[in-house]
Amino acid sequence: MTVTLQRLVESAAFQRFIVMVIVINAITLGLETSPTAMQQAGGLLLALDRAALAVFVVELALKLYVYRLRFFRSGWNVFDFTIVAITLAPTGEGLQVLRSLRILRALRLVSVVPSMRKVVNALLRAIPGMSSVLTLLLLVFYVAAVMSTKLFGASFPEWFGSIGESFYTLFQVMTLESWSMGIARPVMEAYPYAWIFFVLFILLTTFAVLNLFIAIVVDSMSAVEHEEQEQTRELVGVDHDAVLAELRAIRAELAALRGAGGEPPPTA
Amino acid sequence: MTVTLQRLVESAAFQRFIVMVIVINAITLGLETSPTAMQQAGGLLLALDRAALAVFVVELALKLYVYRLRFFRSGWNVFDFTIVAITLAPTGEGLQVLRSLRILRALRLVSVVPSMRKVVNALLRAIPGMSSVLTLLLLVFYVAAVMSTKLFGASFPEWFGSIGESFYTLFQVMTLESWSMGIARPVMEAYPYAWIFFVLFILLTTFAVLNLFIAIVVDSMSAVEHEEQEQTRELVGVDHDAVLAELRAIRAELAALRGAGGEPPPTA
Amino acid sequence: MTVTLQRLVESAAFQRFIVMVIVINAITLGLETSPTAMQQAGGLLLALDRAALAVFVVELALKLYVYRLRFFRSGWNVFDFTIVAITLAPTGEGLQVLRSLRILRALRLVSVVPSMRKVVNALLRAIPGMSSVLTLLLLVFYVAAVMSTKLFGASFPEWFGSIGESFYTLFQVMTLESWSMGIARPVMEAYPYAWIFFVLFILLTTFAVLNLFIAIVVDSMSAVEHEEQEQTRELVGVDHDAVLAELRAIRAELAALRGAGGEPPPTA
Amino acid sequence: MTVTLQRLVESAAFQRFIVMVIVINAITLGLETSPTAMQQAGGLLLALDRAALAVFVVELALKLYVYRLRFFRSGWNVFDFTIVAITLAPTGEGLQVLRSLRILRALRLVSVVPSMRKVVNALLRAIPGMSSVLTLLLLVFYVAAVMSTKLFGASFPEWFGSIGESFYTLFQVMTLESWSMGIARPVMEAYPYAWIFFVLFILLTTFAVLNLFIAIVVDSMSAVEHEEQEQTRELVGVDHDAVLAELRAIRAELAALRGAGGEPPPTA
Repeated sequence: MTVTLQRLVESAAFQRFIVMVIVINAITLGLETSPTAMQQAGGLLLALDRAALAVFVVELALKLYVYRLRFFRSGWNVFDFTIVAITLAPTGEGLQVLRSLRILRALRLVSVVPSMRKVVNALLRAIPGMSSVLTLLLLVFYVAAVMSTKLFGASFPEWFGSIGESFYTLFQVMTLESWSMGIARPVMEAYPYAWIFFVLFILLTTFAVLNLFIAIVVDSMSAVEHEEQEQTRELVGVDHDAVLAELRAIRAELAALRGAGGEPPPTA
Repeated sequence: MTVTLQRLVESAAFQRFIVMVIVINAITLGLETSPTAMQQAGGLLLALDRAALAVFVVELALKLYVYRLRFFRSGWNVFDFTIVAITLAPTGEGLQVLRSLRILRALRLVSVVPSMRKVVNALLRAIPGMSSVLTLLLLVFYVAAVMSTKLFGASFPEWFGSIGESFYTLFQVMTLESWSMGIARPVMEAYPYAWIFFVLFILLTTFAVLNLFIAIVVDSMSAVEHEEQEQTRELVGVDHDAVLAELRAIRAELAALRGAGGEPPPTA
Repeated sequence: MTVTLQRLVESAAFQRFIVMVIVINAITLGLETSPTAMQQAGGLLLALDRAALAVFVVELALKLYVYRLRFFRSGWNVFDFTIVAITLAPTGEGLQVLRSLRILRALRLVSVVPSMRKVVNALLRAIPGMSSVLTLLLLVFYVAAVMSTKLFGASFPEWFGSIGESFYTLFQVMTLESWSMGIARPVMEAYPYAWIFFVLFILLTTFAVLNLFIAIVVDSMSAVEHEEQEQTRELVGVDHDAVLAELRAIRAELAALRGAGGEPPPTA
Repeated sequence: MTVTLQRLVESAAFQRFIVMVIVINAITLGLETSPTAMQQAGGLLLALDRAALAVFVVELALKLYVYRLRFFRSGWNVFDFTIVAITLAPTGEGLQVLRSLRILRALRLVSVVPSMRKVVNALLRAIPGMSSVLTLLLLVFYVAAVMSTKLFGASFPEWFGSIGESFYTLFQVMTLESWSMGIARPVMEAYPYAWIFFVLFILLTTFAVLNLFIAIVVDSMSAVEHEEQEQTRELVGVDHDAVLAELRAIRAELAALRGAGGEPPPTA
């Protein structure tokens, strides 16, 4: 029984069916945002959404039954499970946010289509190489957030009223959005030397982000480089082995020649 | 007859003439935007424009007659045909947009001048390597557009009123233009947790765009790398062959020497 | 006595203790920005801060006693010393800025945790390769600041009133923040040709910054490249030595063979 | 006489003197922007400026006398000559702009200090590799400028009133500064489909600029790569020559051995 189910769950037809349900669901959820579409076919759209959800629940239940706890060993399964679980939560009138999260199911395309999975895996693989610079960036953010809250918090509560607000404002400053006309110049009217803080913060964070970026480029490139060099080295090695084999044959012939002459060969 | 026409159409003189007509047409279309130029030589400018269009129509008709349906096998021919066809459409008073599209003919320079064609081909060649990340980016955009329409559409109809408007606003947010002071901060006044949505969206999309970019750099670099390594490997191979030839000659000589001594050579 | 102290100061336990104190201190300083945390546990937070400062002073005093003047040979020690010295300065009511600088102590994490030290060292190593372009950028900034102060200073004192203000405004223009709608367009209303200045300045500085960036990528990549090539060359060299050794053994054997035949070997 | 002057003009002492005059002149011109400095030492500053200009004029006159027309063969000399000539132009009350151009003399540092010259030469060397993409970018700009002038010029004369104004506005849009909130959204209120124009323009131009950038990285990297590979190939070649020399010696020895046995060697 379990084996039959496993064969079903892993069959190409089953996966194609799930992809189709995800795509249809993504479209119906998109149409739900259109008032005219809701007026004309609102009932159908909601029914389709509920049907899609039912399919997903059955799919995950089957997989859980087949794989048991091994199911959770794959990050992609956990991803699927979380997304479906979120959209199973009660969606009353006051829970507009939870209702809007249903569209996250469209992201299941990433976990179901192998080529998308590969892309995301490639993106995720870039993160460990960035972790040390990211930690440094976070430390700089924390120090800058505490400092700006203490310095500017009293006069500019909207931007620097608490550490959280400072974090958000500093993120905005790092993206360079309205950092000067919107934030720094008004602050400088109250604290003329505030430019030191903002200019230093921008220089530090953009330099760090730039190095994050460079780290990924260099990592990717050195992988390509390494592979090419490996090929060259292998070729050199194969050539070398061929030459050595030939040389050994020559020495054997020489030894035979010498043996014919009656003398022992020297130890090489 | 057709052969003579083909020779004409493919002659350097004909192509130089077409380039000249395109350049003159681009200049007259530019001058048409100047009221003083139109006052002084409006009739001439419009006549020149009509003459250029006539030349293009004749050119394409000739090519169609010479190449028949093979004409449409080249993407560049389709490009030329589309541009000329657009500007042949009726341009009444109410069709200001179609009139303004006439300047697109200047883009025919790209399809006519070989060096420009090469550049565009190089740019287009970068796209397939980006397609998987682009698909992912589009999926993220769709999910974010549906979600933001549901969440913020009611309160901010101008920015998130429909999926289309949300797409445009999210494109603006991705370019980091006024994303915080212009969009996120006003939205946060109504929905205090909206920053989670915007910060996540910016982190995801800029990381994806950055990886698009890196993919192109690494692709270009690994092509260069591969070519250089091929050269090295070829050199190693040639050297290796020379050494092996020499070694075989030595073995032959040794065998001859041994043959003179009357013994058979060992099998290497 | 000094040796015992040195062993203590360099012990892993001591360093772990200092890291812990830095982290706790960073958290208490963060909590100090929250009015509710200060109301509930203000005394404790301030006491913890004073305790952490005392630990840092004792730590540096011990290190100064152990290493004497050698202490200042390490840039990281100078960094630690400066940060602690700044936060020892009097922090009266009017010195809000100095009080806010206490959070800089969190940056000591960088100097104490070896992996963070490595990241910062890597970032700093990128700077010398950038110095020549940075000098050029500074020269362009100086020329542009003097010129804009002379040209626009009288009409726009807020932006270009002095060299210092011009420097700040030009930094903002270089980051592209509101450069046109915020700065250039208003200036162009008074001086219609001001766009020449701004467009040239943006093209020059972004091109220079881009080259800074490229310099770092190329530097990092050529280091990776060099290492890989060194490995290949070493392999080629080892192979070569093996072949040469084999060849020399063959020649020796031949010489011996010839010696048996009574003739002297030719000089190679 | 000419030879003595040439020796003087090319002496290290003379060049150091010119560098010093440039630096002093740059500082005095900077101080001229400060009203307090002008009040206290205005006469001195202006006198120093006139003295520096006199030095530059004499320097260039000497060089012109020594090198005659060869003087203009070097781009750097033309650069120096142009800058000094500009600042010799009459600087009456109404010529504030020409007066402000005097600070351009500080850029002579670039032409006089060899290390700065090298940096600028390196930057300029990047331009030819970018020329084809730059031409394409210019064509896109021209087409977009004509089109936007025709489409939006009547309703938004301030931004798209003429081709020149459209060029400037499109440059602003390309730098992403206020492109949506400042330009595209107001335009979209009059022409709802204007977003197609702006989004396409941004995608095209940023993709082109990105490829400019990639072209420089790949060019720089492939130069580094080529050099490293050349070294490897040279090493392989030297090794190869050593092996071949050894092999030839062995064959000579074999020939001698065979000659002793009385037989002719086979032709390899």
